[in-house]
Amino acid sequence: MSKTISGFSKLSKSEKINWIVDTYFSNSKDAEHILKQYWNSDEKLQQLHDEFIENTITNYYLPFGVAPNFLINDRFYTIPMAIEESSVVAAASKAAKFWMDRGGFKTEVISTTKIGQVHFMYHGRKDMLNSFFISIKSKLIEDCKPITKNMELRGGGIINIELRDKTSDIKNYYQLHASFETLDAMGANFINSCLEQFAKTMKREALLFDDFTEKEKQLDIVMCILSNYVPDCLVRAEVSCKVEDLSDHDAFSGEAFAEKFLQAIKIAEVEPYRAVTHNKGIMNGIDAVVLATGNDFRAVEAGVHAYASRNGSYSSLTHATIENGFFTFWLEIPLALGTVGGLTGLHPLVKLALEMLGKPTAKELMQIVAVAGLAQNFAALRSLTTTGIQQGHMKMHLMNILNQFHANDAEKVILIEHFKTNTVSFSAVSDTLANLRMRIDD
Amino acid sequence: MSKTISGFSKLSKSEKINWIVDTYFSNSKDAEHILKQYWNSDEKLQQLHDEFIENTITNYYLPFGVAPNFLINDRFYTIPMAIEESSVVAAASKAAKFWMDRGGFKTEVISTTKIGQVHFMYHGRKDMLNSFFISIKSKLIEDCKPITKNMELRGGGIINIELRDKTSDIKNYYQLHASFETLDAMGANFINSCLEQFAKTMKREALLFDDFTEKEKQLDIVMCILSNYVPDCLVRAEVSCKVEDLSDHDAFSGEAFAEKFLQAIKIAEVEPYRAVTHNKGIMNGIDAVVLATGNDFRAVEAGVHAYASRNGSYSSLTHATIENGFFTFWLEIPLALGTVGGLTGLHPLVKLALEMLGKPTAKELMQIVAVAGLAQNFAALRSLTTTGIQQGHMKMHLMNILNQFHANDAEKVILIEHFKTNTVSFSAVSDTLANLRMRIDD
Repeated sequence: MSKTISGFSKLSKSEKINWIVDTYFSNSKDAEHILKQYWNSDEKLQQLHDEFIENTITNYYLPFGVAPNFLINDRFYTIPMAIEESSVVAAASKAAKFWMDRGGFKTEVISTTKIGQVHFMYHGRKDMLNSFFISIKSKLIEDCKPITKNMELRGGGIINIELRDKTSDIKNYYQLHASFETLDAMGANFINSCLEQFAKTMKREALLFDDFTEKEKQLDIVMCILSNYVPDCLVRAEVSCKVEDLSDHDAFSGEAFAEKFLQAIKIAEVEPYRAVTHNKGIMNGIDAVVLATGNDFRAVEAGVHAYASRNGSYSSLTHATIENGFFTFWLEIPLALGTVGGLTGLHPLVKLALEMLGKPTAKELMQIVAVAGLAQNFAALRSLTTTGIQQGHMKMHLMNILNQFHANDAEKVILIEHFKTNTVSFSAVSDTLANLRMRIDD
Repeated sequence: MSKTISGFSKLSKSEKINWIVDTYFSNSKDAEHILKQYWNSDEKLQQLHDEFIENTITNYYLPFGVAPNFLINDRFYTIPMAIEESSVVAAASKAAKFWMDRGGFKTEVISTTKIGQVHFMYHGRKDMLNSFFISIKSKLIEDCKPITKNMELRGGGIINIELRDKTSDIKNYYQLHASFETLDAMGANFINSCLEQFAKTMKREALLFDDFTEKEKQLDIVMCILSNYVPDCLVRAEVSCKVEDLSDHDAFSGEAFAEKFLQAIKIAEVEPYRAVTHNKGIMNGIDAVVLATGNDFRAVEAGVHAYASRNGSYSSLTHATIENGFFTFWLEIPLALGTVGGLTGLHPLVKLALEMLGKPTAKELMQIVAVAGLAQNFAALRSLTTTGIQQGHMKMHLMNILNQFHANDAEKVILIEHFKTNTVSFSAVSDTLANLRMRIDD
C-alpha cells in the first residue's frame, strides 16, 4: 500500500483513521481501537474538540491536576495545571502550603505592552522616507479604526508606531515598529490585522506621495507579524520571610537553608548549563497553567527564554537575597496571556479552569501564572539543595515501571518496600518483579 | 467555606472534586459534570492516566492530529501531532506535500552527547583539588556501575568527567562536568542517578584524602543535576531544490519567492523581535511531535531557545541560501529525546504515535521532530511573505467564534460567505449572527 496520499484532509475522520491504521500498523484493528477509545461519548463535544485543529483523529490526554492553597496578594487560589510530568503538581502544592504559612506570594504587573512589526524594503533617501512616515502616521491609525474601534472602547488599541532604520543590519531594510495594548486578549489576531492594514495603507500612500521618486514609491513589504518577544509585558512574583522561618525544624536551620538556596540561585545566574535547567523547572509550573487556561505555551516559552538571554548570556529568571535577616526570592518574566478569545471561550475545561481561578483578567492571570513558576522553582531548589532530586523522582519512576508491568496492588506494596533500600533502575525493577512472580508461581 | 485545605492529596479523586466544586464554583453540579464528562469510560485506562501526575481530577484534551506525506531520507512518514493551535497541522501537511514533490527532507544527527553537573564548593588549594580529582576519577565511574551496567551493555554510559574551576564566577565554586551517551532514553533519571553517586563518592573520598587539610576535606555539594542545555545533541534537517522549482505557477516565480524567503530569514537572523516569533513557529511543529511521542516539551524548549541565543544575541534557528541556482533551507537544533522510558511505554497514544512512526530510535525521532520544525517554518514564511498570515488565521478565527455562538450549519454557510468580503472581528461576527437570527425569528 502506498504510504502517501492525496486529498487526506478532505476525508472524514473515520476514513482518515482507516487509511492510517491500514498503512502504518501491523495490527490495524488494535490501533483503531486505541484511537477510538479516547473519543468522547458525547458526539457534539467530540466534534467541538475535533474542529480546534485539522486532521484530528482523537484526543491526546494530558492529566489535569490541581494545586490548592496558593495565597496570592491575600487571596486564596487552587491552581489548575495540565501537564504530563510527575512531581510538578506535588511540588507546586508543597511550595504553596509552605508560603501560605509565611505571608504568601506578592505579585505585581509591571507593564502590558505588546509589539508588532511591518518589515519592508525601501530603496531611496532616508530623510524622504521619514517625511513620508510622518505624513501618513495618522492615516495608518485611522485606517485601522474598523479593527481597533471595540478595543479602544475598552481602553486598549494602538499605542504608537515608529519608523525604524535597520539598514545597518540589512541593506534597505526598515520597520514599522508598533506597540499595542490588547487588554484581556492575547491579541495576536488583533495585532496582525492592524499590521496588515498598516502595510496596505503604506503601499497605497507611497504611490501617492509626490516627493518620492518612482523607485521610492515601490515599497516592498516583506512581512507583517506580531512579536512573541514581549519584554514590556512584564510581571513580578515574590516571596519573603525571616531567614529563621525557613527552617525545617529537624532537617536544617533557616540560615543553612537560605545560604545554600542563594548559592544555587547564584550558580544559575552565572552558568548557562545550569540556567537552562533552572528555567526549565520554572516553565514546568508556568506551562501547566498556560495550557489549562487555553493559552499558547510556545509563545510564552519563546518570549521567556529570549528574555533570559537578553543580557548576552543565558541566565536565571529568578533571584534571591538575604538582607537584614530577611530572605527574598523573586521572578520577573514577560507573559502575554489572554482570558478572552482563542480557546478560552471554546474549550469547556479551559472555561472551567478560568472559573476556578475566579474569572481573572489577563493581568490577574499573568500574576497567577508567574506564581506557579516561582513556586515550582522554590520546590525544585529546595529538594535539589537538601535531599537531592532523585529521591522523589525515583519513587515516581518506580511506580511508572510497575504500571508498565501491570503490577497488582500486592506486588506494588512489596516492591515499594524493597526499593526503599535498593537503587531503582528499569532492569532492577524488572528482575525483582520477575523473581517475585516466579516465587508466587512456585 | 474555607478556601484552603489540609491533606488534599490524601483525598480520593471524587473527594477532591467535591471540595473544588463546592469551594470555587457557583454552580457546583455543572462544574462536576464538566470534569466527569472528560473521564474515560474504561476505569483501568482512566486510573493509568490519573497516576501520571498528582491530584489528577480529569483529562485535558489536546487535539491529536496527523500530517501525512513526509518524505524523510527517502522514506514516507505520517507524523502525529498533539497541539491546540489551529493551522499548524494544515501547514505541516502542506509543506510535506510541497517537498515530497521536490526530493523530500534530508536529515542527519550530528551528535548525541548529554551533560550533567555536580556543583560544589571547595575551600582550599586548587592544585590539591585537581590531584584529588585525578586520584578518584576511576572510582567515580566504578561506583556508578550498578547504574550504568545495562546502559554500557547497549553501548552507552558515562563518556567523561571533567573538573571545572568556576571560581572566577563565584568564590570557591567548582563543578564536575560530566558527559553521557544515553542511547534511546532521554536519560534524565540515568544522568541524575550517576551525578548523585558522583557526589556521594566524592564526599566519601575527600574525607580519606590524606593530602587535604581538614578544611579541604569538607566538600560542600550544592546540587547534582542534568542539563537541559544540549548543544552537543544536535540534529540537522534540510530541503533543497532548483530555484525555478519553487514557483507557484499562477502567483509568483521561483526567483521572486526565493528572494523574499531569504529576506525573511535574514531579518530573523538579525532582529530578535522577529527571531523569537520565527522560532516560536518552528516550535509549533516540534512541540506537537514531542508531545505526541511522550517527550518533555519544556526540556526541548529550554534547550532550543538557549541554543538560539548562544552567540550573544537571540537569532533564527533556520537559515537559507541561493547558490548556483539552488535554494537550500535548513535547521540545526539540539534535541534530547527518548523513545524508551518515561511516558513512552505507558501512555497508549504515545505508544501508538511511536508505532505510526515505525518505532524509531531516539536518533530517528530527533530527525523526524526536526523535520516537523523545518516544515512548519517553511509554511509560515511562505504564507507570511506571500498572502500574509491573517487570511488563513481569520478563517479559523471565524469558525471558532461561530462555534462559540453555537452557530448551526446553515448559519455557518451564510456567515462564511459574508466574511469572504468583510473583516472578521468578534463584534462583527457577533453582530452579523445576531442580525441573521433576528431575520429568521421574524
